[in-house]
Amino acid sequence: MIKVGIVGATGYTGIELVRLLYAHPEAEISAITSRSEAGRPLSALVPNFFALSHLIFQEPSLDVLTQCDLVFFATPNGTAMKMTPELLNAGVRVIDLAADFRIKDIATWEKWYAQTHACPNLVAEAVYGLPELNREAIKQARLVANPGCYPTSVILGLLPLLEKQLVDPTCLIADTKSGVSGAGRAANVATLHAEVSENFKAYGVSGHRHQPEISAILNSVCSAEPAQVTFVPHLLPMNRGIHATLYAFATNQTEDLTELYRERYNGELFVTILDSGMHPETRAVRGTNQCVISVNRVSKQQIVVLSVIDNLVKGAAGQAIHNMNLMYDLPEGMGIEATGLLP
Amino acid sequence: MIKVGIVGATGYTGIELVRLLYAHPEAEISAITSRSEAGRPLSALVPNFFALSHLIFQEPSLDVLTQCDLVFFATPNGTAMKMTPELLNAGVRVIDLAADFRIKDIATWEKWYAQTHACPNLVAEAVYGLPELNREAIKQARLVANPGCYPTSVILGLLPLLEKQLVDPTCLIADTKSGVSGAGRAANVATLHAEVSENFKAYGVSGHRHQPEISAILNSVCSAEPAQVTFVPHLLPMNRGIHATLYAFATNQTEDLTELYRERYNGELFVTILDSGMHPETRAVRGTNQCVISVNRVSKQQIVVLSVIDNLVKGAAGQAIHNMNLMYDLPEGMGIEATGLLP
Amino acid sequence: MIKVGIVGATGYTGIELVRLLYAHPEAEISAITSRSEAGRPLSALVPNFFALSHLIFQEPSLDVLTQCDLVFFATPNGTAMKMTPELLNAGVRVIDLAADFRIKDIATWEKWYAQTHACPNLVAEAVYGLPELNREAIKQARLVANPGCYPTSVILGLLPLLEKQLVDPTCLIADTKSGVSGAGRAANVATLHAEVSENFKAYGVSGHRHQPEISAILNSVCSAEPAQVTFVPHLLPMNRGIHATLYAFATNQTEDLTELYRERYNGELFVTILDSGMHPETRAVRGTNQCVISVNRVSKQQIVVLSVIDNLVKGAAGQAIHNMNLMYDLPEGMGIEATGLLP
Amino acid sequence: MIKVGIVGATGYTGIELVRLLYAHPEAEISAITSRSEAGRPLSALVPNFFALSHLIFQEPSLDVLTQCDLVFFATPNGTAMKMTPELLNAGVRVIDLAADFRIKDIATWEKWYAQTHACPNLVAEAVYGLPELNREAIKQARLVANPGCYPTSVILGLLPLLEKQLVDPTCLIADTKSGVSGAGRAANVATLHAEVSENFKAYGVSGHRHQPEISAILNSVCSAEPAQVTFVPHLLPMNRGIHATLYAFATNQTEDLTELYRERYNGELFVTILDSGMHPETRAVRGTNQCVISVNRVSKQQIVVLSVIDNLVKGAAGQAIHNMNLMYDLPEGMGIEATGLLP
Repeated sequence: MIKVGIVGATGYTGIELVRLLYAHPEAEISAITSRSEAGRPLSALVPNFFALSHLIFQEPSLDVLTQCDLVFFATPNGTAMKMTPELLNAGVRVIDLAADFRIKDIATWEKWYAQTHACPNLVAEAVYGLPELNREAIKQARLVANPGCYPTSVILGLLPLLEKQLVDPTCLIADTKSGVSGAGRAANVATLHAEVSENFKAYGVSGHRHQPEISAILNSVCSAEPAQVTFVPHLLPMNRGIHATLYAFATNQTEDLTELYRERYNGELFVTILDSGMHPETRAVRGTNQCVISVNRVSKQQIVVLSVIDNLVKGAAGQAIHNMNLMYDLPEGMGIEATGLLP
Repeated sequence: MIKVGIVGATGYTGIELVRLLYAHPEAEISAITSRSEAGRPLSALVPNFFALSHLIFQEPSLDVLTQCDLVFFATPNGTAMKMTPELLNAGVRVIDLAADFRIKDIATWEKWYAQTHACPNLVAEAVYGLPELNREAIKQARLVANPGCYPTSVILGLLPLLEKQLVDPTCLIADTKSGVSGAGRAANVATLHAEVSENFKAYGVSGHRHQPEISAILNSVCSAEPAQVTFVPHLLPMNRGIHATLYAFATNQTEDLTELYRERYNGELFVTILDSGMHPETRAVRGTNQCVISVNRVSKQQIVVLSVIDNLVKGAAGQAIHNMNLMYDLPEGMGIEATGLLP
Repeated sequence: MIKVGIVGATGYTGIELVRLLYAHPEAEISAITSRSEAGRPLSALVPNFFALSHLIFQEPSLDVLTQCDLVFFATPNGTAMKMTPELLNAGVRVIDLAADFRIKDIATWEKWYAQTHACPNLVAEAVYGLPELNREAIKQARLVANPGCYPTSVILGLLPLLEKQLVDPTCLIADTKSGVSGAGRAANVATLHAEVSENFKAYGVSGHRHQPEISAILNSVCSAEPAQVTFVPHLLPMNRGIHATLYAFATNQTEDLTELYRERYNGELFVTILDSGMHPETRAVRGTNQCVISVNRVSKQQIVVLSVIDNLVKGAAGQAIHNMNLMYDLPEGMGIEATGLLP
Repeated sequence: MIKVGIVGATGYTGIELVRLLYAHPEAEISAITSRSEAGRPLSALVPNFFALSHLIFQEPSLDVLTQCDLVFFATPNGTAMKMTPELLNAGVRVIDLAADFRIKDIATWEKWYAQTHACPNLVAEAVYGLPELNREAIKQARLVANPGCYPTSVILGLLPLLEKQLVDPTCLIADTKSGVSGAGRAANVATLHAEVSENFKAYGVSGHRHQPEISAILNSVCSAEPAQVTFVPHLLPMNRGIHATLYAFATNQTEDLTELYRERYNGELFVTILDSGMHPETRAVRGTNQCVISVNRVSKQQIVVLSVIDNLVKGAAGQAIHNMNLMYDLPEGMGIEATGLLP
């Protein structure tokens, strides 16, 4: 049994980690920590955790966490980087679900996250935890930077086109839509039911932190010109799910794109390619670790890719457990193969 | 492995049966049938069933169904009663998720369901499949009448009070609220998103089929006067979940009711009693087989019981599998112990 | 033109007052105040107020407010009582949409609102602003206590039965359900979209402030025994609307109740009585000042009344304007006769 | 008073026409017709129409409709074209809210609507009823083709850029999202609450009828190359509102775009231009005839326009009444100047 600790199990991502790890046959939750809730049982905060009344929040101390084999950080940006060096030194492996280790360029990171990085040297070591891209490196990693939710849906949707250089990389558009759980469980007028329901809007049109993350990863697979992505996120009046609608301009007009995608993701447990003309829907992946994609040539030049994930699973907790399975040489799907809940 | 057949896997209850049985370690789905969809794969109708493309709808013939050990009917009322006699004769056990075998009094049944019963003799044999009430009989049953969704939440909420004769049985009120999946997956203006969302209303105030079902079961546990229940259902602008708010008038004012409920349901895997003053919520049981209850004495005379279930799980498919587990002497919780999905 | 001031126009009730008063032909919004937002335009907080960019929040000073003819308080409980004495002295009339003047018994008020009342003598003078009950007194009032949202729906639903002594007043049940806008626009985890949507629960089962308000008003119309109301509120996964399901036990079993209600509310612009057996729905009154009711005798003894309002209109801002119309001898429906928005 | 008839007042668009026209000071609803509902009162179908019980559906006969000054068609595509010639001959003016007269090229129309056009000659005469584009022609028109909902939001969002030739017209992208009321009030599994809520998906990625309508109008304002629009619609889990996210590639990089839009729509009552960087939201226009737009230069080349409307008002009934006001020389805003309902 892998002894895992979860730092910050009070938000939706942390709750989802607990839900999935509780049912994982090879993991055992040894510690959950929260500075504000230390001493309280998890079940007092989360009404669906009847069976988990034994989990009590502890202070996030090194004493507690170094007794784990693996620590997940489901914390605000800037928390994991402060504790990670000591945890790694103590032989504990780390998966950060926040953004501290996702962007290799420190200056870019510091600009977007408006803070000084506490351990830039570890950024170089960290592996970007997208199994479909970095499987072998993840297996060996001490430190995994779990991808952002939007980046997961966008990168998986564009990867085959960019790897094969079939589209103009300087002119990519990602029109993305997310359920409101992505904004977290903090008290906030903007995410009240009466503000979000029966409403739809874009946000961050002048810039969003996931844009540099997406660009950096896509650049790493483009041989020639740097990838330029216009990224416009929108807030959906629902809780779970991301839908990315991706626009790219074809430089080659004959390739069978669906076939290409199926080859690229052949054997991948968590990527499903629909026939062209079909429409993936977010509810089909609710509660699951799946990314479902269709790729469509809508005119000679224009390619439209539709890509959906559950932002809390494939976009966060599920992918983190996929990474854990890889790091501990377990079957990749262990604990994360549930069928979606419909309706 | 138990070979199971599902008649009518096109509605929400049938879909939920497939979802749960697919993950059940001791059951195998041998056949799904649908007159209208015969020949089509299930995954074409249900976008979350990627991994189930091998399940193809067949005609609901005896040839197909008699090869099963157990057949679930997730059909409109009046279907199961037509096929059940021959299935039982062929040695196949049956769990009906519709209402054909729930009401022992044939005249009452025929009045409320507006049809002639096809096999009244089997009604007498059928066991009402509420494990918390009829566990031993279910274990031996050939034919189980799976309880209605509203009745499950109401009966579990009132049972301890009536068994102990602590309230006036002639003056019970069940104010119940259900998510819209209870109305099924048929095309219907009344259940369109644009009719249901941002709306709330009662329905059936002049009479609802679940009222005689509730009364009959409650009567069976009252020694003296017959139980009389005023039953008012309401439609919630959400998909899953039932909340029953139950009002009863105490004849005894000293009993510790929470303690009483905990004793009554001691050892029950799927009933959780909260402390008095706490409020069960439907999302806590979403996707689970739990019934969560709190019992509150709000004045000398007045008792208020709050009871929640997921109408598709504890109110239908999950309870049916619980019954199957009992019938086949499996651990009661097998395949139905998931934690709720939040949010 | 009546010059009106609105203290606290940052919440949903205040916003609704602005929306309705802006279109009112005989009222002019002279001042909106907010301590926290002073200096900011209203349109910066409320995206639907394009045309209202001239309304700038001011500090809630007496200088500003005494220039109005009428001041509405859409503030937290305990604010209006501090400013009202001076406003009345300056000849300004006051309508308080909070609870400061609703309960005549000061001890009861202080217990439920956990503060000392600042002007108990004015409580006696204040008129409870339910036009269907207190029309003549409202016309003469300097100070109106606008009813609570739940009390409006419950009192209008029970009034005819109690006035005519047709039911047992000691045994009334109000099972009420409210949209989340009733909880206000403050940052709060409990009212986040991800907490409220796809969820339903009761709250305040051990006591709610609207219970003594309802009891006091109902008592005032009962001749004999004091009214006792069991009041259980629930939170609906939607924004606007209250549905009260009211249970009463008949002492007379022959009266035509629908006829009785139609007589009682004959000529009332804002109460509509449906035929027995029909189900009022909250969307039918969305954005309107209507209360729609059906009254149903479901058994010899049991009466079920269904009553719906829009909590922000008939339950708050609309009723306040109705009161203003009465106080200034305007046509009662002026400015509040819109048809509901469907869907 | 203008005597108006409404053919097909059973759907959401027709209901919205009734709601708005009922409050219009210069219009009087003389007739509502519906083949299926003839003889029934409108209020039996639409629970918010208390005050409209005098409106009874009639058969859609010429006898009835020729007594009107103006007839609105809120019918399925293909209905208006059959009755329009005779109505015009009888001196009745016509506004068609369906698509029969929107596309000048008959072959294109017949391909997308899969029927033979009944009166191609009238298509040439019909004026496309977008007041911001065709104001003068509308004033004189006998026959107005009311624009589609998506086209209204897209065309208003792109018009200034194309008229000034500031972007590449061959490479426009319209990623659009609509509430479900756009799909109508017919019984349909795909628009059930349990299918739509907590879900998001694209549809029509391989082609949608609004694409040729948009292209044709945009072409008419482009001087040089024909406009090519990639159009991808999505279904939102809400009832009202369209959000168009529009991507265009700048050919000029210095123009102040917000200023340009404000000049273009100067004096327009129903177009509001927000500052760049702001995000229009659908709830801000709920129930209103507004189109709210922001235009953003997100990189040297890339322009992103955000445009919102209420699909049933500015996208249908409200714009139709705006056209009526123009045709009868009334103040443009008469009857359609309401403030949005929030929340």
